[in-house]
Formats: sequence, C-alpha cells, structure tokens
Amino acid sequence: MLPRGRPRALGAAALLLLLLLLGFLLFDGRLRRAAALDGDPGAGPGDHNRSDCGPPPPRPSKCELLHVAIVCAGHNSSRDVITLVKSMLFYRKNPLHLHLVTDAVARNILEMLFHTWMVPAVRVSFYNADELKSQVSWIPNKHYSGLYGLMKLVLPSALPAELAHVIVLDTDVTFASDISELWALFAHFSDTQAIGLVENQSDWYLGNLWKNHRPWPALGRGFNTGVILLRLDRLRQAGWEQMWRLTARRELLTLPATSLADQDIFNAVIKEHPGLVQPLPCVWNVQLSDHTLAERCYSAASDLKVIHWNSPKKLQVKNKHVEFFRNFYLTFLEYDGNLLRRELFGCPSQPPPGAEQLQQALAQLDEEDPCFEFRQQQLTVHRVHVTFLPHEPPPPRPHDVTLVAQLSMDRLQMLEALCRHWPGPMSLALYLTDAEAQQFLRFIEASPVLAARQDVAYHVVYREGPLYPVNQLRNVALAQALTPYVFLSDIDFLPAYSLYDYLRASIEQLGLGSQRKAALVVPAFETLHYRFSFPHSKVELLALLDVGALYTFRYHEWPRGHAPTDYARWREAQAPYRVQWAADYEPYVVVPRDCPRYDPRFVGFGWNKVAHIVELDAQEYELLVLPEAFTIHLPHAPSLDISRFRSSPTYRDCLQALKDEFHQDLSRHHGAAALKYLPALQQPQSPARD
Amino acid sequence: MLPRGRPRALGAAALLLLLLLLGFLLFDGRLRRAAALDGDPGAGPGDHNRSDCGPPPPRPSKCELLHVAIVCAGHNSSRDVITLVKSMLFYRKNPLHLHLVTDAVARNILEMLFHTWMVPAVRVSFYNADELKSQVSWIPNKHYSGLYGLMKLVLPSALPAELAHVIVLDTDVTFASDISELWALFAHFSDTQAIGLVENQSDWYLGNLWKNHRPWPALGRGFNTGVILLRLDRLRQAGWEQMWRLTARRELLTLPATSLADQDIFNAVIKEHPGLVQPLPCVWNVQLSDHTLAERCYSAASDLKVIHWNSPKKLQVKNKHVEFFRNFYLTFLEYDGNLLRRELFGCPSQPPPGAEQLQQALAQLDEEDPCFEFRQQQLTVHRVHVTFLPHEPPPPRPHDVTLVAQLSMDRLQMLEALCRHWPGPMSLALYLTDAEAQQFLRFIEASPVLAARQDVAYHVVYREGPLYPVNQLRNVALAQALTPYVFLSDIDFLPAYSLYDYLRASIEQLGLGSQRKAALVVPAFETLHYRFSFPHSKVELLALLDVGALYTFRYHEWPRGHAPTDYARWREAQAPYRVQWAADYEPYVVVPRDCPRYDPRFVGFGWNKVAHIVELDAQEYELLVLPEAFTIHLPHAPSLDISRFRSSPTYRDCLQALKDEFHQDLSRHHGAAALKYLPALQQPQSPARD
Repeated sequence: MLPRGRPRALGAAALLLLLLLLGFLLFDGRLRRAAALDGDPGAGPGDHNRSDCGPPPPRPSKCELLHVAIVCAGHNSSRDVITLVKSMLFYRKNPLHLHLVTDAVARNILEMLFHTWMVPAVRVSFYNADELKSQVSWIPNKHYSGLYGLMKLVLPSALPAELAHVIVLDTDVTFASDISELWALFAHFSDTQAIGLVENQSDWYLGNLWKNHRPWPALGRGFNTGVILLRLDRLRQAGWEQMWRLTARRELLTLPATSLADQDIFNAVIKEHPGLVQPLPCVWNVQLSDHTLAERCYSAASDLKVIHWNSPKKLQVKNKHVEFFRNFYLTFLEYDGNLLRRELFGCPSQPPPGAEQLQQALAQLDEEDPCFEFRQQQLTVHRVHVTFLPHEPPPPRPHDVTLVAQLSMDRLQMLEALCRHWPGPMSLALYLTDAEAQQFLRFIEASPVLAARQDVAYHVVYREGPLYPVNQLRNVALAQALTPYVFLSDIDFLPAYSLYDYLRASIEQLGLGSQRKAALVVPAFETLHYRFSFPHSKVELLALLDVGALYTFRYHEWPRGHAPTDYARWREAQAPYRVQWAADYEPYVVVPRDCPRYDPRFVGFGWNKVAHIVELDAQEYELLVLPEAFTIHLPHAPSLDISRFRSSPTYRDCLQALKDEFHQDLSRHHGAAALKYLPALQQPQSPARD
Repeated sequence: MLPRGRPRALGAAALLLLLLLLGFLLFDGRLRRAAALDGDPGAGPGDHNRSDCGPPPPRPSKCELLHVAIVCAGHNSSRDVITLVKSMLFYRKNPLHLHLVTDAVARNILEMLFHTWMVPAVRVSFYNADELKSQVSWIPNKHYSGLYGLMKLVLPSALPAELAHVIVLDTDVTFASDISELWALFAHFSDTQAIGLVENQSDWYLGNLWKNHRPWPALGRGFNTGVILLRLDRLRQAGWEQMWRLTARRELLTLPATSLADQDIFNAVIKEHPGLVQPLPCVWNVQLSDHTLAERCYSAASDLKVIHWNSPKKLQVKNKHVEFFRNFYLTFLEYDGNLLRRELFGCPSQPPPGAEQLQQALAQLDEEDPCFEFRQQQLTVHRVHVTFLPHEPPPPRPHDVTLVAQLSMDRLQMLEALCRHWPGPMSLALYLTDAEAQQFLRFIEASPVLAARQDVAYHVVYREGPLYPVNQLRNVALAQALTPYVFLSDIDFLPAYSLYDYLRASIEQLGLGSQRKAALVVPAFETLHYRFSFPHSKVELLALLDVGALYTFRYHEWPRGHAPTDYARWREAQAPYRVQWAADYEPYVVVPRDCPRYDPRFVGFGWNKVAHIVELDAQEYELLVLPEAFTIHLPHAPSLDISRFRSSPTYRDCLQALKDEFHQDLSRHHGAAALKYLPALQQPQSPARD
C-alpha cells in the first residue's frame, strides 16, 4: 500500500508507529467492551460499541472471496432472501460465495433464480436442510423460525471442512453498506475468539419482562444471532458440536424450550465460554423489534450498516422510526435485480454457467440489423422466480389437467374470473418488474378468491427488453405444470365452467397418453361486449351465437386462425372428431405435459401459437375437437406491448425473417415432411392480430 | 474522537505521531500529482490520482451543511437533475443546500417538485439564469450545453457573498457514493488553491486528434468541469471575475469559439494560474465519452464515486463497460423518490414547509378507524413533476379551451386516439411510479403522433398509497391549464372531432367569462363495443343511438348521473339550453380556468365528479347544454384500483362518511343554500360505478 519511490526507511518507521497506534486503540476498545459485558449498568446497546470510535478495520483485499451462509425454507423466506441478496449485491465490491441451506421448495426456487440471474462473481452452493433436521429436531422450540432457525447451530459441520470463515445471516436482514466492511471485522478477532456478534438490542435476556419470564442464560443483554461472523475452523477445533449440545441439554433440564431458537443456545454457550465471542459494533445488526433499544445505537452512529427486521410483525413493527428503515427495505424489495448483473472491475472471476456463450452471441449481433431488437430479445435470459407465492402441488392424478397461461400487469383483473371458471390447478407466468411483483403480491392478498387458491402457481419472469417474450413465458409456465396434461390457454379467455371436469373425463375416455398421441381442441369464441353473461352450457352458447351476442373467435378479422375447428360440425357433434391441420391454425389445445415447447424465437406478437401447432402436427399429434368444450375471449384494450409494434413497418419484415428461420429448423428436424408447411410460412399475416 | 479514560499523555503522543504520518502521506501524494501535471508522459488518468492510496480524508462532521450548485434549463435537463439529486440523496448523510441556477421552465418544474417532495434536511435556493445570460452571452460557444454551460463561470458572483465552499455539478453526473466524501476533499486544499477538479479523461486537450484540431490551452490533459469544488471566497478575493474574462478574451483573439463551454475557459485560466487548482482523485468524475481513458481509473480503483455521462450521446455512448455504468444510472432514474423522504438521525433541521403540520395531522389519525386508509391517502402529499416532457404553452387566445384529464399507466393507449380527436391544448395528470414515468417517456418517443404534439402538457404525480387520488390528480391538471377555459373530461372518453372548434365558437357566441357565469355541458354517450366506428356528426351519432350501437352514458347502470342533461331535448335542440342541477348529476363540462377545484377528500372511486358539480351549482354556475357537442366513452376492463375496492364492504361506509363531511363543509360555505343538496348526499350510491 505504500507508494513507491520514497525513502524506504522513513516509510517503514512511520508504518510501525501507525501499527502501534492502531494496536493501542483496538486494545482499549476491547477493554471497554469487556467492561460492558460484565454488566456495567450504564452501558446500553450502542453505547459501548458504536461504530464511530477507533479507526476503520482494514478492508479485505480488492478481489478476496467472501463467504455467506443463509438458512432458507419455503416460499415466503425465499422471497425474503432475494431482497437480502439484492441489498448485499448493491453495495458489494467483492466476489461472493453464498452457502444456502434450503428445503426442497426454497432450493427449487433459488436454484432457478440464481441460474437465470447470472450475476458475475457470485457462486451459490446448496445444502439440504432436510438432512440436517435430525440434528436439531430434538430441541423443543417456540420461535416462529421453527426448526430452520436452529440449523445455524450445525453450520460448522454442515459447511465444507475447508471453509474457515463465514458470515451467517438471517433472511430478514437488509444491508445498507458494503459487506466487505463486515468481513474486515474478522481481523479484530483475538486468537481464541470464534464468534462475532452484536449485542441484543432489547432487555429480553435481563429477564423479568413479565411474571415468570425466565429467559435462557446470557451475558448481560446477550447477543443477537441475525448477523454472525463464524470462525468455523476454530469452532470445529474447540469441539463446538459437543459444546452447544451439552449446554442445550443441560438448560433444557430446567427450561421447557428455546424461545428464540438458536439465539438462546448461542447465548447460553457464550455465557459459559465468554472467550469465544468478539462483540461487533451495534450498527452491524440494528434490531427492529417492538421494544427495541436500537435507537441508542443508530441515533449516535453516522452510518447504519445492517437492518434486522427481527419482529414477527416484520415491516408492521411499531417503531417511531420505522418509516426510515422501511424505506431501505423497500428500496431493495422493488429494486430491479437485472441492474445487479454488473461485473467487478479488475476481479477476474469464472463467469456464471452459460454467460460466456451468451456474451459471444450478443456480441455477434449487428446493431444495424433492422431486426436487432428481436434478436437481442430472443437471447435475453430473464430472471425467473418460480412459485412466487405459497403453492401446493396437486396430488398425483392420472388424468389431471393444469391450465397454462401467461400475463403481465394489465391483465391481473382476469385472475379472479379465471379462478371462478377453472377450479383445477393452474400454472401462470407473469411478466413483471420487481416493483410490479410487489404490487401483484398485494393484489393477491387483497382478494379472498385468489388468496384461497393454493393450487395456482405464479411464476414471475422479470421484464427485460422492449419486446414481449410471449413464448418464453409460455414455456416457463408449461415447464412448471405438475399434472400429466396441460390446457394451453391465453389469459383473456374464460373457459366453460364445466371444462375442467369435462377435460379430465375426456382424457380418460379417449385413453390419451399410453394409447393415443393427441391434442384435444377446445373451440374458441369471443364476445365483443364488455358486459356479458357467460353461458352455462353449449345450448346457451349456441343461442348467444345465434343472436349475435357471441362470435367464433376472430370471426371478423382472422377466420383462418380457427376455421379448421369446423364450427358447423361442432354445433351438431356428439363425439370428439378429428380435424386436419391447415395454414394459420392456432386452436387452444389440451396436450400431455411433455408436449413440444413453444418456439422462443417468436417475441413480440404474431405467429407464436401458430408455430406451436405446426410443430404438434409435424410430430403427428392427432387434432381432436371436443364436442362439449368451449372457451370465450373477453374484450380488452390492446396492450401497450402490442400497440407499440403494430404500427412499426419493420415489424412485419422481421416476423417474416423469423418465420423463414423457423421453417429452416423445421426442415432440419422433419426433413421433407416440413415441405407441407412452406406455403403457410410464406404468406403474409394480417397485421391487426394479437 | 479519542476514547475517554486513558492516560492522556500517551494518547496525545500517539495522536501527534499519527498526524505526522498523515501529513507525510498527503505531502507525498501532492508531489506525485504535481509531477503528473507537469506532463509526465507515463501518468495517464487514474494512474497518478487513484483513490486507493493515502488515508481517507477526514469526513465532514455529522451534521455539517453541504452546498451544491447546479445550472439547469429546460424540460429535459430538469428530468436529468432529478436523477442526479436522487443519487446524491440516496447516499448522503448530511444536510444539503442546493443552489439551482435555472431558466423559467426549470424553475417552474423544480420548485413544485421540491416543494412536494418534502425531503428533510434539504434546502433549495433558485437563481435566475436569465439575469446571468448577459455575463456570458458574448462568448462564442459550440458546445451542446449552450449558454447555460458557461454560467458555471459566474457562480462566485451569482451565489450569496457569504457562501465560501460549494460543489458544482453538471446535470449529467450520477453519484455512487456519499457526497460528504467529496466535500471532505476541501480539507486537502492548500492555502492558495481554490478549484478542485478531476483530470480530463480524454486526449482532447493534447490536440492533434484530427487535422486542424486546436483545443484551448490546458495543463497536460486538462481538467473536466463536470464536478468542481469551488472555494468561492478565495476566487472572489483573487479577482476571478476579471481573471477568467481576461483569459477568455485573449484566447478568443486566436480561437473562434469555445468547444467545451466553461471547461475551455477554466482550463485556460488554470494553465495560467496552476496554483489555483487542487487535482481530485479520478473516481470523483469518471468520464464516459466515446474515446474515454476512464478505464485506467476505474479498473484500478476499488470504488467509483461519481459517473459523468459527458458524451452528447449520453447513455448511448459506445464503451465496452457502458452496461455497468448504465445500471447505476438506471438505478436512480427508476428509483422511487418517495423513499428518499427519510430524516437524518441526530441532525436536527428545519422541516420542509408544511411538513410539520402534515406530520401532526398524520399522527392524529386513528389506525383502528375503518376509514384510516382514506384519511391517510387524503393527507398524502404526492411528488409532482409538471411538464415532464417539452411543452409549448398555447398562444394567448381569449376563447381557447384546454382538455383536462388524468390517467394511470393502464390508459396510455388512449392518448393517440385522444390526440386525433382533440387538436387543441391538453393538460394531463399521470399517476405513475418513477419507473413507470420512464416507460411513459419511451411510449411517447415511440409514437410519432404523440411525439409531434408540443401542446399536450404531461404532469407526473408520483404514486403513493393504496387509493387512487382522482381529484388531486384532476386538480394538478386543472392548475396547469393555461387557456382561459377548460374542458373537464375523463381519459376514457373521446370527444367529437369537431368539439374543440365548436367549444371555442360557443364560448365566444355565448359571451362567457365577462357576461355569464356558466358551465357548458357536453352530453356523454357510451359504446359497449370494443370495436367501434366513431360518428362524424350529431346525425350519425343519433343513427347509432337508434340502432343500439350507442347508449347515453351509463344508461343501464346509473341513468341518474346524466339524466338532467335531458337527452330527448338534446336530440331536437338547435340552441344551447339551460338545465337544472339534480341529485347525482355529473356531466362533463367546460368552465373558466378559475372554476372551483375538485374536492381532494374523494380518493379511490365514487362521488368525485358529483361533488364538483354540486359545488358549481352552489356557486351559481348556469348549466348550459350545447346542442352539437358530444363525447363518447369507450369500454375498458375495470382498472386495478377500482376492482380492489369495489368488493370492500367498508368502502361504501367510508364514502358515506366522506359525503357527510363534504356536506358539513358545504353548509359552512354556503349556509342554508346547502340544504338543497342534503337529500342527495344521504342516499346510498350504486356500488358498481367508476
């Protein structure tokens, strides 16, 4: 760090003096801290360990890898952990390795999320929480974090043996500073200290908060375990495994259960072995519980580092400064995670899987190409957060059908009606910004109809780029469907009330799956009226059709899209009938879950469903129209995405280019059989469609 | 800063040594910097003044007030300056005083914005740029910043005489760090230095970039003036006024004009008086021009502090790391400015005007009140950004009419059609988040119809709270209308093509204004069809009405809303006719601009227009129906805002409570005359309306 070209002796002498001085200041700080821990009554939180005193600790070197461990289980904690990670990434300047101890639900969510997030210089390892359960399940525990909170105790054995230092975080903390400053505090540990903790910012461990309040033993106010610096190497050496179990067993002889999960046990161990703990400045874990004493800390400090929402009420906690802290939290809750895909200059790191190929492909694009936006959008890897809300997978049933669709914010109003029309499982992809995802959450919470439905899986695909990635969205929803069959629908359609039952019965009767490779066609209609009384049967539907209150779908603008369904035959049909593919056919179909995916090259609007039906036909799916099935399109204003591109003259040219490439691929896969589709691909499409 | 309770002698000795060491390091740094400026060919940007070497300068004390000056003119720069201010506020920990040198447009925008933003510990002063013009207009200048860029030169005389230190910023910089760290660099100034600058990160001033490239004189690569630390006191003392004028006049004898505005002159002065300048670390002004050498700076630094988009291409600049920097910029562009309304703990400051009363009113609300959300929403002060896009005020014409309406994101699609139907001025309030405001901007840019209309003023009201503040929005749009008359419309209505001309003619003929106090009623119709051919005349409209393709507005659900318009009479009418107010009447009217405001207590949906018509009637406006005027409502899905509250059982109770309070106020203002409205206020309203 010393600039070159200066008389060396003088530099060295000065450095020595500086080190001496530093050592003195640190030593002094430790003495004062120890005094506070010994029960000095005048020393409240923030009083004895404020961040302002003493020189800042040395920062880790520019590219040092920092390790962070987090225990995370379930849908809601997975959302929390992402907000925490966003705050950490916003301020970080070092490569990070996240060690995530997860249940199956959280792993499924977070693995996909990090895979698609592609943040440079972030590595993620997963550890199976279910395998650790038995190590802590014997401990009776009353804390809301349940069994998972206790798992922080077993990290020294659960994490890789070669890992020596780790920062352990609760999912309900938010960073307001660079995590490397926290990591730097490891340098303050004495040779025997192994656990860095901030004092608990409440009087809980002092006891007597109410009659019979008997907390677990702790030094003074005790410590809070929302943020922990762990010297794993030293803990392993000190026999941590036995140490905490012994203490816990002994305390549980007289105490019925832990009240604050792992924190009670950490504190009991520390009371017995005070030499293990290195107290950290209070700003590294500003605790916002209902009766927090944190104000003593943050009003004196010039800088908050980590905010900890350690009340079960979380953001609804009563605290006179809660607005201030909530603003920090909301910042990262609503922060566009795409913006965190930024490299660390001067820190070479292994790129995330797929990132290099992606970079190359993007670099090869020609910005002058009129279809540049299309090509770029096709290559875009969207962050995907599957099962954004709690979801119960449907029980395995051989003929069950999931409704699959995609939407953006402007179609949320459809969801309640859709839930009333389709009582079965649904898998819906939502194209949202991070902020919109929060609005979506509030929308669901405010609707009793939607909040009651645990069989609807919502998958958030984060917005990026100017074109609507309609087929990528459909593929996300399709991939997450868990029943053997899927009904591939669109969000502005309401199915017949009976359709879910009828489809399951039809699948069974027709012996789909094992015997027949078929796509069941659900005939599509539309109303142009904004207020509309939905028909309860085919008879009612036909009556509405006859008086002109309903039409077959796109009858006026684009009859080719559904003509092959043969509506005249459908009127009379009593049994399923087979129809032939024809150009531009795009019916709504029920197919096995393992059907071909949608072609993701079709972004924006046009040809996205048509291409999928071509592929089904090319793969020799029978097209069978169901005589009692129907679905009805409701009117809506054109979406922003569509109106932006309808008027664009290059749009149609680019679409034609996509179609040409689609056909080249089709020929590669299906050979001469693909010739059948060539004329269809070469005719221009009506511009006014969605 | 020294902890108490330690032997004082030892502490003092240590401190002395530390100071000695600090002095040595600083001195060394200065020597090396000076070497680079003397033209050391090996020292490129970032090489000689990187931020990593030497100890950090002392931070300003916790609550020290920092002064920042920015020159800002026009609509687009006003948007830029807000992004800059957001980034500054995000990281700041000190009270700030902004000194804004603005033209009339920017002042109008920024005054309203800061007034409604109500950020604690931020003071704003305005200085009239037009008054400073004459001081710099004699300088021929080719830079895109125009005359306004040059105004930085006259800040020492334009800013208050008692102001000694100020940070001067271009509107195109983004902070990535706490501005107090920059302020702290004042402490590095020698006794004679007066200007702190970062070296220019391009070869521009070295000359010979192309044939006949002859830049202004500069020391080495020169300095960039996007970020300046100014010791105003010293400049005034040193005769800055004369100094720069003399230098500029002399150089202009041989050079035709400045190429880089003020920067050329600053550099020429510094070349002559090198003792004035204190070079700043490169990270405080990372310059992203097309051929920037900034990479030498940022790849070595561990920390970027300020990013400067100093290319006329701004975010479209070609730079291999531009994505990285763009992400920083987008962060603050889309950042929810409401979240920056956070206090500085431990820094008592005078609250922004109105903030104290607001806090008190909010504190008096009862969270258990079922109408709590309504009360809170009524009290909310929304940030308002008037004329978000370039706008040309209409020329003064005595009978001109502005169409006034409000909308949120889900009605943007209406704008193009509205522009086709209404060729006159419009004042539209948009209820948006910061991120949506950017989407809106792109939407306008992508539409040739909208981009061409300079007579449509868009006023962004930033979203906050769960209920739609419909009347607050209407009042913003109404207050910004600049013609003598306004047509108070709603965004989902399209007026007759002829309405604008017809209204102006009617206003003139009827002698409104001076002679008559009247509200002209524009009869309202609706189509339930999503595709619809708009009638070109009253005759065509009546024909559509007769075949049931059109209805009078809300004919099926709520005929009372428009019944007093007397559609039967309107069919036959050849001349304007007077109608009487009746309960629930809510016509669309044309009134003088100084008409009563909408009652802002009506948030969410219901009674918002009805109350306004009651007020007009109570103030004895004649209601005159125009025989050739009409406007037609287009169908749309219910907005998210409305569907959320329609189903709420407490919603109607709260609305009734608002109506009761409205009537109490009405009685207070109009006495016994208000009795007329009592029955209307007491009847329950249909729940299915918007």
